[in-house]
Amino acid sequence: MSLTHLIERVARVDPKGLAVVCGNRDTTWQELQQRIAKLAGALQKLGVEPGDRVAILALNSDRYYEYFFAVFWAGGVAVPMNTRWSVPENIYSIEDCGPKVLIVDDAFVDHARRITDGTELVKTLIYSGDGDTPEDMLNFEALIAETEPVQDVSRAYGDLATIFYTGGTTGFPKGVMLSHGNLLANGLISAADRGGSKDGVYLHIAPLFHLGGFGGVIYMTVMGCTQVFAPSFDPKVMLEIIEKYQVSDTTLIVVMIKMLIEHPDFDKYDVSSLKNILYGGAPIPVELLREAMIKLPNVSFTQALGQTEMSPGIAFLMPDDHDPEGPNAHRLRSAGRPAMGVAIKVVDEKLQEVPLGETGEFMVTGPNAMMGYWNKPEQTAETLINGWILTGDAGYMDEDGYVYLKDRVKDMIVSGGENIYSAEVENAVTSHAAVDQAVVIGIPSEKWGETVHAIVILKDGCELHEEELIGHCKSLIASYKCPRSVEFRTEPFPFSGVAKVQKNELRKPYWEGQDRSIS
Amino acid sequence: MSLTHLIERVARVDPKGLAVVCGNRDTTWQELQQRIAKLAGALQKLGVEPGDRVAILALNSDRYYEYFFAVFWAGGVAVPMNTRWSVPENIYSIEDCGPKVLIVDDAFVDHARRITDGTELVKTLIYSGDGDTPEDMLNFEALIAETEPVQDVSRAYGDLATIFYTGGTTGFPKGVMLSHGNLLANGLISAADRGGSKDGVYLHIAPLFHLGGFGGVIYMTVMGCTQVFAPSFDPKVMLEIIEKYQVSDTTLIVVMIKMLIEHPDFDKYDVSSLKNILYGGAPIPVELLREAMIKLPNVSFTQALGQTEMSPGIAFLMPDDHDPEGPNAHRLRSAGRPAMGVAIKVVDEKLQEVPLGETGEFMVTGPNAMMGYWNKPEQTAETLINGWILTGDAGYMDEDGYVYLKDRVKDMIVSGGENIYSAEVENAVTSHAAVDQAVVIGIPSEKWGETVHAIVILKDGCELHEEELIGHCKSLIASYKCPRSVEFRTEPFPFSGVAKVQKNELRKPYWEGQDRSIS
Repeated sequence: MSLTHLIERVARVDPKGLAVVCGNRDTTWQELQQRIAKLAGALQKLGVEPGDRVAILALNSDRYYEYFFAVFWAGGVAVPMNTRWSVPENIYSIEDCGPKVLIVDDAFVDHARRITDGTELVKTLIYSGDGDTPEDMLNFEALIAETEPVQDVSRAYGDLATIFYTGGTTGFPKGVMLSHGNLLANGLISAADRGGSKDGVYLHIAPLFHLGGFGGVIYMTVMGCTQVFAPSFDPKVMLEIIEKYQVSDTTLIVVMIKMLIEHPDFDKYDVSSLKNILYGGAPIPVELLREAMIKLPNVSFTQALGQTEMSPGIAFLMPDDHDPEGPNAHRLRSAGRPAMGVAIKVVDEKLQEVPLGETGEFMVTGPNAMMGYWNKPEQTAETLINGWILTGDAGYMDEDGYVYLKDRVKDMIVSGGENIYSAEVENAVTSHAAVDQAVVIGIPSEKWGETVHAIVILKDGCELHEEELIGHCKSLIASYKCPRSVEFRTEPFPFSGVAKVQKNELRKPYWEGQDRSIS
Repeated sequence: MSLTHLIERVARVDPKGLAVVCGNRDTTWQELQQRIAKLAGALQKLGVEPGDRVAILALNSDRYYEYFFAVFWAGGVAVPMNTRWSVPENIYSIEDCGPKVLIVDDAFVDHARRITDGTELVKTLIYSGDGDTPEDMLNFEALIAETEPVQDVSRAYGDLATIFYTGGTTGFPKGVMLSHGNLLANGLISAADRGGSKDGVYLHIAPLFHLGGFGGVIYMTVMGCTQVFAPSFDPKVMLEIIEKYQVSDTTLIVVMIKMLIEHPDFDKYDVSSLKNILYGGAPIPVELLREAMIKLPNVSFTQALGQTEMSPGIAFLMPDDHDPEGPNAHRLRSAGRPAMGVAIKVVDEKLQEVPLGETGEFMVTGPNAMMGYWNKPEQTAETLINGWILTGDAGYMDEDGYVYLKDRVKDMIVSGGENIYSAEVENAVTSHAAVDQAVVIGIPSEKWGETVHAIVILKDGCELHEEELIGHCKSLIASYKCPRSVEFRTEPFPFSGVAKVQKNELRKPYWEGQDRSIS
């Protein structure tokens, strides 16, 4: 079954119900199905055939939602591009998967042109903004207005639906391939495990190019709930939207919860409609949870552990376990229990399972486990082993089935909910002419969990300032991946026996006395 | 992902929790996983390779449950055989799918021998009873005791998991092929749409060779609930089991609810643990519902509409709609709304969708829609069209998304929750030497909804008694399919313009003044 069947269901069961709301636009489920069937027809006229990729570079909106389902309806594969990435990174992903069409909104018209100037693969640009359509682009609304609805191509369960690019351990992004079945299963898993109100109103704050955002699209379409779109996170705008649309559910990272409840205008808005907040990125600090429970007394909090390779659900820490004063308060440091339909095991370096309670690497499986990495059979084989995914996260499971993350096996930094692979940052740093060697590590940050720190050995006789090196990195990789601080050193790096830099030694002075448990 | 991963999940999250209970045996999830991994090893030693079929002919038990998951663990395909079918019918299904191994319990040792005498395909018989093992059979427990656990073969999402045989419109049974993904999706759909207690105790009364029973196996394994097995339905035994094991959930057909609450010993048992009854087969009569709500005040009632081809979930009528005194009491005549993840549309004879509220045939789709019929590409192509299943049920959907079944497009009788295809019964009746022509219809029955009635024209000069003809049918097809009454007639059958008997004309005198709405 295709993800489009979710639309076919709600369009018949609740045809006049509100489906999507964005700014001053709102669309019923029946209207939405019509718009999707027309946009799919337009994509087919532009040459999109089953299996063809269609990319988008845009902020969250109702049109972003329509893009996803129109691509599926036409039988294509959606490639939502990371709006935080640099031009060279986005060119890499375009060259990798070769989309025929790229959709862009007002915020990314220039960025998109710089991408298409760097590659000949994209034949057609569609403008989904509200201003004047650039001359070299087609207009999103005009395509819908002038095209007849087409029949759903009705892709099968195992067919590729999306490619989401994530950072790579080898220094290059990887395209995670998720099937219609993967994504639908994840939506059903969320509905089965978390439940939730069938007549809720969901606010999309998390970006839709992340599974943290797109997972909510599928979950809420399975449930048939109204979905409201905010272009990006702004606590004041969020307060306005919650009050105006009586928002009941949303997904945030921990730092956003803090910014929301500590906003000076918080008390001016009625946010009593809010019932469920799903948060990810890290466990919630107990003090923040206490404050949030006072300021948002109607809200149930759920922590999600996920990764793109799992579409993304792995584990949930349920509302019952959000009790800082209860006997199980220690569970607030865990990442919860495996989601329904998802199995977790802990293995040693030989992939043998370790006894319960011992630390090792988490392997996970479920109907939401990815198909593999696009065009990267070796990396797929290293990660997807006999149906189980090697997560790169290390930790243990207690006797009640709660998982605790203690470290990362993959060399990765998590900052503000974003995964940053050190290898990508090291590639950027060492590409500077003055740099001889560099090591990138995460150092503690109260606000972001970790921030990116580079330790650099310069070539003999060279000089370099921190700001110049950071500027150089920004021309190559996304801002959020770039070092926030640089430390120049002259003595050689500590090496392990197998010629690998001992990063733990370099991290030690920064983490003294601090808990690096993560989730 | 394979269905075995459900076991891998619960065995780690709740290793010491009670998994299955049957008679005086009980097994924890950790023990269960071990037993499954050992039985899978035994099957592999007996030559079962990925994709090979393994059949079972037995009453419900914990070992039936272990059989399913051991077959999946070994990579095989489970073929649960209908215990109510005749020897020729079961031989037909064995010849059709060719299982290497057949498992039988005490109740079916003789029946199984008569089947294997009729075919050379089954190489190995395994005895799963508790008596002495017949000489020509291996022992289920001995195989587990003497085999080392093997690693899960870890089948993929789209791989075939089970073949369930159903009656056929052409007069021959059809093997419905369901994948690991189909069955898992159906379990998640049940958990998502119905919810339910995560620490419940489920009683398996419905036979496991039906999706009505096996659907509960997957649903409850997704939820990680304890499962208790009763060999068959007996209201007194059921009352004992509910009290003894504090059963919270079960699945019944409507007539069983009546037999349970009207049992003379009902008041002697404490059934207050019972919280959820799922019933199928037909809408519940309002008088029975009122009585059941008084006698089982803690119970929420849910009606399910399903068919084997949908693994089996299509629609649910939820507890909220079980209010005979409320403003929506008319919904008690409906079959509820499409399950989460399942889409329903109503089409005319050209498969064009009709406007909301108009009657036509139901087409359904979802991640639980079957792969097709085993070895029957033409029948698959007639039923599975562009991802949608033509159900054979006719009716309409109201503006709130509730579906009402009004008639059957396929010539089928529903008696006590069993689907009976008239063509199969007509084949049996006309195979008698004295019969010239026969028509089989359903006539009303207060207890069973409908019963099977044959109208027969004898050959010139022949005589035949009702009992002899019914006895002849019982030698060929399952008892429940055989006519309960026979009417001999001399005048020709009424024919339509296209040389088809007008069954509606023949049914009319029986149904005068009665509602044949069904579900």
